[in-house]
Amino acid sequence: MLQDLNTNTICAQATALGQSAIAIIRVSGPRTFEIVQKVFHSRKGRRLEAMAGYTMCYGTLLKDDGTVLDEALVSVFRSPASYTGEDMAEISCHASPYIVSEVLRSLVAFGCEYAAPGEFTRRAFLNGKMDLAQAEAVADVIASETEASHKIAIQQLKGGFSKELTQMRDQLLKIVSLMELELDFSEEDVEFADRSQLRELLSKASDHISGLISSFKLGNAIKNGVPVAIVGATNTGKSTLLNALLGEDRAIVSSIAGTTRDTIEDTMNVGGILFRFIDTAGIRRTLETIEMAGIERTYYKIKQAAIVMLVLDYTRQDDFEASIKNLCSNLGNSDQRVVILLNKIDEKPVVMTSLFEGRDPESITPEENINKVCDAISAMAAANNLSPLAILPISAKKQTGLDELRSVLTTSQQSVSIGTESVLVTNLRHYNALKDAYDSLLKATVALNESRPADLICQDIREALYSIGTIVGEISTDEVLDNIFRNFCIGK
Amino acid sequence: MLQDLNTNTICAQATALGQSAIAIIRVSGPRTFEIVQKVFHSRKGRRLEAMAGYTMCYGTLLKDDGTVLDEALVSVFRSPASYTGEDMAEISCHASPYIVSEVLRSLVAFGCEYAAPGEFTRRAFLNGKMDLAQAEAVADVIASETEASHKIAIQQLKGGFSKELTQMRDQLLKIVSLMELELDFSEEDVEFADRSQLRELLSKASDHISGLISSFKLGNAIKNGVPVAIVGATNTGKSTLLNALLGEDRAIVSSIAGTTRDTIEDTMNVGGILFRFIDTAGIRRTLETIEMAGIERTYYKIKQAAIVMLVLDYTRQDDFEASIKNLCSNLGNSDQRVVILLNKIDEKPVVMTSLFEGRDPESITPEENINKVCDAISAMAAANNLSPLAILPISAKKQTGLDELRSVLTTSQQSVSIGTESVLVTNLRHYNALKDAYDSLLKATVALNESRPADLICQDIREALYSIGTIVGEISTDEVLDNIFRNFCIGK
Repeated sequence: MLQDLNTNTICAQATALGQSAIAIIRVSGPRTFEIVQKVFHSRKGRRLEAMAGYTMCYGTLLKDDGTVLDEALVSVFRSPASYTGEDMAEISCHASPYIVSEVLRSLVAFGCEYAAPGEFTRRAFLNGKMDLAQAEAVADVIASETEASHKIAIQQLKGGFSKELTQMRDQLLKIVSLMELELDFSEEDVEFADRSQLRELLSKASDHISGLISSFKLGNAIKNGVPVAIVGATNTGKSTLLNALLGEDRAIVSSIAGTTRDTIEDTMNVGGILFRFIDTAGIRRTLETIEMAGIERTYYKIKQAAIVMLVLDYTRQDDFEASIKNLCSNLGNSDQRVVILLNKIDEKPVVMTSLFEGRDPESITPEENINKVCDAISAMAAANNLSPLAILPISAKKQTGLDELRSVLTTSQQSVSIGTESVLVTNLRHYNALKDAYDSLLKATVALNESRPADLICQDIREALYSIGTIVGEISTDEVLDNIFRNFCIGK
Repeated sequence: MLQDLNTNTICAQATALGQSAIAIIRVSGPRTFEIVQKVFHSRKGRRLEAMAGYTMCYGTLLKDDGTVLDEALVSVFRSPASYTGEDMAEISCHASPYIVSEVLRSLVAFGCEYAAPGEFTRRAFLNGKMDLAQAEAVADVIASETEASHKIAIQQLKGGFSKELTQMRDQLLKIVSLMELELDFSEEDVEFADRSQLRELLSKASDHISGLISSFKLGNAIKNGVPVAIVGATNTGKSTLLNALLGEDRAIVSSIAGTTRDTIEDTMNVGGILFRFIDTAGIRRTLETIEMAGIERTYYKIKQAAIVMLVLDYTRQDDFEASIKNLCSNLGNSDQRVVILLNKIDEKPVVMTSLFEGRDPESITPEENINKVCDAISAMAAANNLSPLAILPISAKKQTGLDELRSVLTTSQQSVSIGTESVLVTNLRHYNALKDAYDSLLKATVALNESRPADLICQDIREALYSIGTIVGEISTDEVLDNIFRNFCIGK
């Protein structure tokens, strides 16, 4: 689809807002040097137009009325060797909100337009500096909070993902072109395209795409956080646990208030892995309560979670069996991992004399009792075919046992470490396009196996090619681009 | 005083924190290129060490374990042509908190140290790139919120203030040196220094410094806001007025909660001038209340204010006379300007039949009544020797009359517009140093007039020179520098 290349010149602050040492104002477009020259006088009288790319000069920023605004550095980038592929300048001035707004105002007064979110990257894409998947990775790189999510985004930015897709697309394209050639000679019943080679290629491509599709679950978990549901009966200390886990490092915590006060989600970087902790409504054993809806939501969260942390209250051991049974009947699939937490071990220990047959209750130490209770929980879990990752005695209130819990969480994710070579899908748009491509390839395979006419097979493969093409942006519409770049920051 | 020049290499993020398109990490010191080269590989294999100053190159940022972190631009500045005067590099990468922290971590792993607040500017000062007053102006430029405060800061940054002081200092130094020469020939009773010339010079310098000292009041008002006290009896609508004035432009409002709940200060940019509105405790006519302390504070604020806005309640006209009298007896000096606001004009008008002799009360329009009441207020003010800037009928609640009020406020400050040439003192440290210098010059003048010995006169002049020297930093101690740069942002 033909894209109009913008011919206007845009400007925006590219650094974060707020007072600091330096702010960068980016300008891109054909009139860049002419307009920036009007607000900037080089100390040595150099003309920006005459400067080589990748050089800077020092001078004075002027307001449009000619008064001195600041001292600044201007960096010059000449088309096509720039981020956008256009002529570009970066003005580096003092990061005072007043100065930045005055510079932008003057640039606009001299003919610039304020850039839309992501417009620099959009121009980079439209000018062929990067494909669409790479452009999308730019936003992911900026938003990455952990090493793992950063690694995926950088790989995508470097074009690893696009390269795989392009290779697959080229092979399919070659085959489909040959088949389409047959159509021109349809009277003569020739086969330019080797059918067995095509079958093999389709099978290989389907497998590959299927692998990418299944990588989305992991990729998404890495990007948005491994979902960890905190469940248990009411008042077992779930919220205290959430606060205790998050309290240690509040600075890198982000809060997403759920649609109801019952579900609170918070992400936190634990040992380099992003976890998304989900505090759920307490499960009540009787479903006859009016909180049915809230509890249903809890069950839904349990099914979605990669890890479920069941919180048991040390002082209410009568509830254990029911809680475990309830959890087991609500787990989603066999991939889910369960951690059982015996909370409130700082409180008055409840001695179950049945666990200590023949012993004087007075002679039993708190540690002995905790161990015995953990053993009993383990037996209950086994009886319900549940193999928890760990059964940990903790006190959320006193913050004991939390290091062990964090260690269990990070260890649980170590098997899913990302090699530098593996490609993971993290983007919902890509995921949906891959599923469409997969469906089309499946249809093509069926048509091939049924020896259907070449034009039908071609149509299915063309559809798969279309879907793959949308990912790297060989096929794109303004609407798709608008959706993608809308979520970028200004100045990128 | 001798200053150790640092020989370590420092690094810091120079842009504001937060996700955005670009972040800049600054590195300065002798090992800059060697260390940055370890975390950055130019795409074309260029060595930073071999690059010319004021050029950039594009490449890959690596972590200290060799994995790819980001794509980045590195700008090279070679000593002495850099901000600090040392070798410097600026790394421009994606503004992801993860990437920035990893780059800094790697730089430190390879031998950099984290920069202290203001350390880049401190090095610029120590390396003679700017004097101390200019260095201090850097922080003021960044913090400037209005055109006026920005103009003063930029002028100081350009060295206008320092130049004046240095010229004065050079002249005094010349005279004092000649006088000190006399001391060597004291037996011979010669006078190398022309006493009448010295007298003239001392008088000129004293006048100049005295002018600078008195500019502090205005300079400080421009930097910190023109203080406007809102006073009046209780429940006349002072807080409603404050909120109405601030509500229009909440975004650039900063709140400073007073030490007591009685005094609330808020700054706002009105027509390019920063005003600091001070909401005070209501003045009660009887001082027999237990709120004595709060009211004393109000009186103090009235004395400090450049503008006092007296709020009168249209529905309580019996209070007017007492309020005006009370204000007049508490004004600080003749420079203070007063604006009288007749508030609550939207409420049921109180017709003072005495003002409309012989008229049927039913026939009097609200406008007529308001005008008459304003006339009466004007007469009361005149009777108390008060010439208010304006008497304005307003409704803080309905936001009527506020544009007129804003216009009165900005007009009141127009006579104090800052020419591009005039130097204003905005810094308390400079103000105090100038006062010390003034006192010393005064002592020298007295000694000269009393024909005291040259060495005594010299000592006084030397003390004045010392005080002036501390402003531009010709004389500075580590303690002074620590105090100044402590309040800078990191990376500046």
